[in-house]
Formats: sequence, C-alpha cells, structure tokens
Amino acid sequence: MSANGFKEVSENLSHKVQQNPYGPNPADFLSNVGNFQLIESTLREGEQFANAFFSTETKIEIAKALDDFGVDYIELTSPVASEQSRLDCEAICKLGLKAKILTHIRCHMDDARVAVETGVDGVDVVIGTSQFLRQYSHGKDMNYIAQSAIEVIEFVKSKGIEIRFSSEDSFRSDLVDLLNIYRTVDKIGVNRVGIADTVGCANPRQVYELVRTLKSVVNCDIECHFHNDTGCAIANAYTALEGGAKLIDVSVLGIGERNGITPLGGLMARMIAADRDYVLSKYKVHKIRDLENLVAEAVQVNIPFNNPITGFCAFTHKAGIHAKAILANPSTYEILSPSDFGLTRYIHFANRLTGWNAIKSRVDQLNLHLTDAQCKEVTEKIKKLGDVRQLNIDDVDSIIKDFHSDLSTPLVKPTSNGLPKVPHVLEGLEESDEKRTKTE
Amino acid sequence: MSANGFKEVSENLSHKVQQNPYGPNPADFLSNVGNFQLIESTLREGEQFANAFFSTETKIEIAKALDDFGVDYIELTSPVASEQSRLDCEAICKLGLKAKILTHIRCHMDDARVAVETGVDGVDVVIGTSQFLRQYSHGKDMNYIAQSAIEVIEFVKSKGIEIRFSSEDSFRSDLVDLLNIYRTVDKIGVNRVGIADTVGCANPRQVYELVRTLKSVVNCDIECHFHNDTGCAIANAYTALEGGAKLIDVSVLGIGERNGITPLGGLMARMIAADRDYVLSKYKVHKIRDLENLVAEAVQVNIPFNNPITGFCAFTHKAGIHAKAILANPSTYEILSPSDFGLTRYIHFANRLTGWNAIKSRVDQLNLHLTDAQCKEVTEKIKKLGDVRQLNIDDVDSIIKDFHSDLSTPLVKPTSNGLPKVPHVLEGLEESDEKRTKTE
Repeated sequence: MSANGFKEVSENLSHKVQQNPYGPNPADFLSNVGNFQLIESTLREGEQFANAFFSTETKIEIAKALDDFGVDYIELTSPVASEQSRLDCEAICKLGLKAKILTHIRCHMDDARVAVETGVDGVDVVIGTSQFLRQYSHGKDMNYIAQSAIEVIEFVKSKGIEIRFSSEDSFRSDLVDLLNIYRTVDKIGVNRVGIADTVGCANPRQVYELVRTLKSVVNCDIECHFHNDTGCAIANAYTALEGGAKLIDVSVLGIGERNGITPLGGLMARMIAADRDYVLSKYKVHKIRDLENLVAEAVQVNIPFNNPITGFCAFTHKAGIHAKAILANPSTYEILSPSDFGLTRYIHFANRLTGWNAIKSRVDQLNLHLTDAQCKEVTEKIKKLGDVRQLNIDDVDSIIKDFHSDLSTPLVKPTSNGLPKVPHVLEGLEESDEKRTKTE
Repeated sequence: MSANGFKEVSENLSHKVQQNPYGPNPADFLSNVGNFQLIESTLREGEQFANAFFSTETKIEIAKALDDFGVDYIELTSPVASEQSRLDCEAICKLGLKAKILTHIRCHMDDARVAVETGVDGVDVVIGTSQFLRQYSHGKDMNYIAQSAIEVIEFVKSKGIEIRFSSEDSFRSDLVDLLNIYRTVDKIGVNRVGIADTVGCANPRQVYELVRTLKSVVNCDIECHFHNDTGCAIANAYTALEGGAKLIDVSVLGIGERNGITPLGGLMARMIAADRDYVLSKYKVHKIRDLENLVAEAVQVNIPFNNPITGFCAFTHKAGIHAKAILANPSTYEILSPSDFGLTRYIHFANRLTGWNAIKSRVDQLNLHLTDAQCKEVTEKIKKLGDVRQLNIDDVDSIIKDFHSDLSTPLVKPTSNGLPKVPHVLEGLEESDEKRTKTE
C-alpha cells in the first residue's frame, strides 16, 4: 500500500501482464476478478423496481434470455410474496435451464417450507442485522437471528439444495455481530454468506476491508449485493471480487428498489476490461443489447443515454484530437472494443470541435481526393458553420463536395477496374451513418 | 489493511463518528473527502458529448446556473477550437461569476497565447503521456513533453493566472515518466497537477495507489478526471479524494466523450453520504434537479431512469418489508434524505409485493378505520389482484373502500371540528399520488 509497494507492483505488472494494466492486482492473492460468478436478480430485486410487473410469460422469456447469456444463477421473488409468485417460481424451475434457480426468502421457517417445495436449486435467506433494521423492521436480537438462521439453514440443507445466508444492511451492522453470525452459519455448512449494501452507500475500500476480513473468518464462498444510491455499485462489486468475494448480484440495467443495484451490462464492461478472456469464455456479451432491450420494454423505461456499452454514444468519439488518434489506433481512446458487443464505433465529425484528420477520413469515405492542406482548409469551413449551428452529416458532405467541385476535380475518381474505390481506412465509419441517423 | 486494522478502524469509527460510518476513513490522513472542490466541465468535456451544441445564450445560462449551485471552477472549451468558442470564453469571463473560469488547451504555445488573452482565471493544460497517445496522437517523447510543458507553464504563470498541468491517459502511462514530469512541473510552480483516466478504465484501489504515490512527490494540489466507460467514475473520484486528491472534474449528468465522466449529481450523492455538513455548506444541492433538467434539455436527452438522486424512483420504496421499515424510520432504507434535494419519498403500495403495513398507512391516509387484522385481510385481496395485472392507486383505493363499506362503517370519519382528519404519519405519501401519476 506504500508508494514503494505500488512501484514494485507497477513494475511487475509491466513485465508480466503488460497487455492489461487493468487486470487483477497481483497483490490481491485472494482475488476472484478472473473467477467470478453472477447471481442474476432481475426476477427478484428487479421485480422490486417501481415500474416492474412481470407476467408469467415475461418472466419465462427473461429467464431463458438470462440463461442463454450464461448467468450462473437466476434468483426469483419469494414464493410467499403472492400465489402467482409461487406458481411462477415452479414454472421457471421446470424449464430445465442450465443456470441454477434460486429463490429469496426471509429467515423464517414458514417461508423456507414453501420455498423448498418449488423445485429450486437453492434458497437465499436474508435477515436485517443493522440496529436500524433490528429496531424498526423485525425487532429481533442477534441471538434470535442466529437461532432462526440455524433452524432455516439445517432445514434447507436437509432437502439437499443450496443455501445462502445473508445479512441485510451489512455495512451499518456491528462488525463483531456480523462476524459471529457468519462464522456460525459457515460452521453448519452454508454454501455462501452474503454481504449486502442495502442502502447503497458503501465505498470501495470499505468493501475491500469487509470482504477481506470476512474471508479470514469463513470457508464458504462470499456473495455481494450492492445498491447504487451513491453511484458506486459497479466499483464496489469489482473491489469485492479483488478482496475475495466470488459471486455478485446483478440485474439487467440494475433495476431494483429505488435506483437499483449493480447492472449486469455495467459489470460486464468493468470485468471485460479486467479479464476479457474469462468474461468472453463464460458470457455471451454480444447479447447484452438484446437483453437490455427486452427488460427495458418489460418495465417501460428507456436505456439511459449514458449506459455503459449500450448508451447511444458509448463508442462515439467527437473532439478532433480524439478522432485523430482513434483513426490511427482505436485503443488510444477505447478500453472496450465495440465489436465484442456486436456494436460499432462512430467518429462524430459534424461539429465545431472536429479536426482535419476526421474530415480527411470522411473525404476518403466519399471517395474524393484532397491534399492534407486542402483537408485543413475545408475543415476550417466546417468549423465555421459549426459555430453558427448544430451540423449534420449532410451539411459536412455538402461543404466537402462544394469545396471539391471548386477545385474542378472529378467527383468520383474511378479506379482501374472502373468501380468506385472502396474506402479501407475506417471500418467504424462504414456503419456509422445509419447509427447516426437513428440517434439524432 | 489487515483484519485487525479494520476492526480498530471500525471501533474508532463507532466511538468517534457513530452517526456516519460512511464518513472519511480515519486511516486516510491525507483525505480531502471533507475538503474537496469541483471543476465543472459541462462547457468543455460536456461539449464533447455527441449531442451537444451549445449556443452562446445556452452556455451563459448554464454557467450562471453552475455558479449559483456553487461549483468552484467552470471549465470552458479551448478558445482555439473555433472562433465562436473563443468569443464565448470571453463572454463568460465577463459575467463576473464567483466561480473561477478556466479554459482547457493542448500543451502548445499557440494555444496558450490565445487562452491567456480571453480573460480566464486559469488555464488547464493537457498532454497525452501514454505510449498509445505518444505513438498515435502527437508523436512526441517525454523530453519534448517536458520542454513544451515548461515553456507553456512559465508563459501562463507570467500572466498571473492559475495553471494546471495534466497528463492524459495517466493510468496507461509509465509510472516513472509520470512522476518525473509531475515533479518537474510542480517545481516550476503549477497550481495543480491532473490525473486523467481518459479511457475510463481505472479501478478504485488503483486510483488510490496512484494518488497516494503522486501525493508523496508533489506539493501542489491534485485534480482527477475520470471517464465512465466501465461505470466507476463516481467511485474513482471518491477514492481519489481519500488518497489526497483535492479537485474532481465533473459535468452535469456526466456528459462528455463517449458515455462521459463523473456526474455532478452522482458525486453529490456520494459526498453527502460521506460528509453532509461540508456538502450542504458549499453547494445548493436542492438545485440539482433544475440544473440537470436545464442541461438535459440543451442536449436533448432524458434524465436516466436510474440516475442518482433525480431518477424518477430514487426515493421509491416498494417491497413490503422495505415499506414497513421506512414507515417506522426512513433511515432504515435511505442513506440520502430526499428533502435535502427538494424531493419527496414515495411508498409504492399498489403491487403484489406490498405488505400490510404499507396498506395500513394508505388506509390511514384515506381517513378510514380498519383494525390490523382487517388491514391484513384487505392486503391479501390487493395482492391477489396484483397477481393478475399491474395495479394503480385507484385499484387499491377501490379495494380498500369496498372492503370498508362492506364492514358498514362511515367512509370518512369526521373529527370534532367537522373537517376530515388530516393524515399525519406519512408525509412522503402526501405528494406521492401526483408523482405516481407523472411517472407511470
């Protein structure tokens, strides 16, 4: 953690994993950054999103899409929430998906008895452990919590299915109480213990500390659940994995209580930057867009304009200095490759911040011929109009073509075989006009 | 950093700052979590957002609103980007705002000469230091970079205005090169050095390490700039402050190149959770919503449904177990108080996940009288209809009123003065019907 420590790490990194300085930190010997699993909770946490009402058909469609994507677990609303919730849980268990099916219940035998009859592969038990929740929610003390937990856990285990025990509002719970109960449930053989930032306010280094501490107390896997009220849900998930957590709760677009939890797509962006091979070997990330569209339609929201990966401009480069470098090598300003997600890059050249390199590439695309000096000259004309009003591609093309005509050169220079020359420099721009039209 | 270290910290926290376990970590003795400043870049980074075209009038309106909000600095597009950019820069400098006005230029004397004539309070200089940018952007080596930097810095300083030197793509730059150049520019007296995660892929602990290391090398302030491609821009900003950075670059809604940078609103959410007194003493956070609406309209985007603070459901509570506790004490499931932002909480009770406590509060609001047992009974009826289709408030109210009529009690029980009894338990629900109508 010292400056020297950092230097050493940095030097190791530059020798050993020069390709990816964003990969797992070699100092994190318990890290699961390259070995994590996803508990997908769109059909549980996501159902707690204000706009969510999922019919049985929609639930099944989402469950199948998540399974196809490759999530490790699918978590469903408690079967005691309502009669149809129970029936839907049974129906999804019967689909025969590759993903394991979980349901989420209160730490209570009444709930557990119903849950184990639905056919799920595992039960996620949760109970509030913070003073807030102990006082204002269930009103129980830690002894009572431990007794209920033991009873529920042993019952679920006796049915031969997986069991997770999670505290709720873990970061406002007493640390000693937390470690005590986690050790207790670990000893009686839970598959996972869960840490939950229920109010969405943990910060990354706090998460790392708690996970590392817990890792020294239990042998089972650690699962983490982060709300996004203060915008840290993706970063907290990443830092939890660095500290040794193995499973992260996500939902499509992060939908859940309030403004939701760690979003599946955003976490994929983060994890691909850290360990692209692992992510691509497990998850069909090129289906992120379809999955997000499916859920967005079901809950009647728009994909946020600034969404990681699928926001309309996530791979749009605008300033002249950025465009120039991207044209030379996309890695200069991209840590993610749009093609991994079935998307394309776009160079936004129709604006006053544009530069002559971007305009030159457009000139090439139009199959015109201008010298560098001429490209600089026409760029100044474009910037001048861009100062007056918002430009579109037609504006720029008109200026370029007029400029070119004035030079009295032929509009399309035929190649030796008589066909127009195919532009070869800028693949990204080839599909961009279409995309541009859609997004403006 | 050990488990024991964490325990000690945790115990200290519980004695000293029991009110706020999310506050600054006492182990971070260089932390500026409670002493940070904002460099607001909607009019620079934000102008690089795909949809942005700001007229002079819009720029002035945004600048005034940012100044009123209380940002410390306002950063403007380079005056060499276009002639109107230069004129707009001059116009904003003449407004006499409290915030200091900066402009952002390449590390080049041609740019610097123009910048210092605009009337700005300071100049932010940036140059790419990563191998990627050195190879594919400007093509210069570190010696050349250092020489240019010295020339530009001394020139700007000679004009008596502030100067910041930032590397670009800092996290993919050679650490030794970086520290060398930062030390050089610090010695000749820059006001700030900047770290920029230009490709948006740094992770929080990496940020902390780099800031801490840099802090041991320079005496000047450290500014940080984080892109959000992998969803960590808010968390990275927070961690940078923990490590000793003092200034964070933000833009309204995070607009900028690609999917943008640390959003002003999201960072306010994060910082209020850590040090509410400091944030409220400096910034008019109740104006966040107006500010976001102003910019969203100017760039023609919608506020993301899941935006921190201002997302339509950021303070909506739905699951029965959440609603029950929120009714008893909002701190159970809220780390942020909606009233700080001029907003109200909403309890979403018209759905199958509802619980009898939420329904009971609605019964009270309707000024009806039901026993707890009756509330539980009517809740079952509501959940049953909620299983069949999406409910609205009218559905729930009808079920409650029908149930109540069947009990043959009067619909509204008059109080002693003859007026209907005013509900007093649930302030949040009073304005909620309106909000509900708007958002569905």
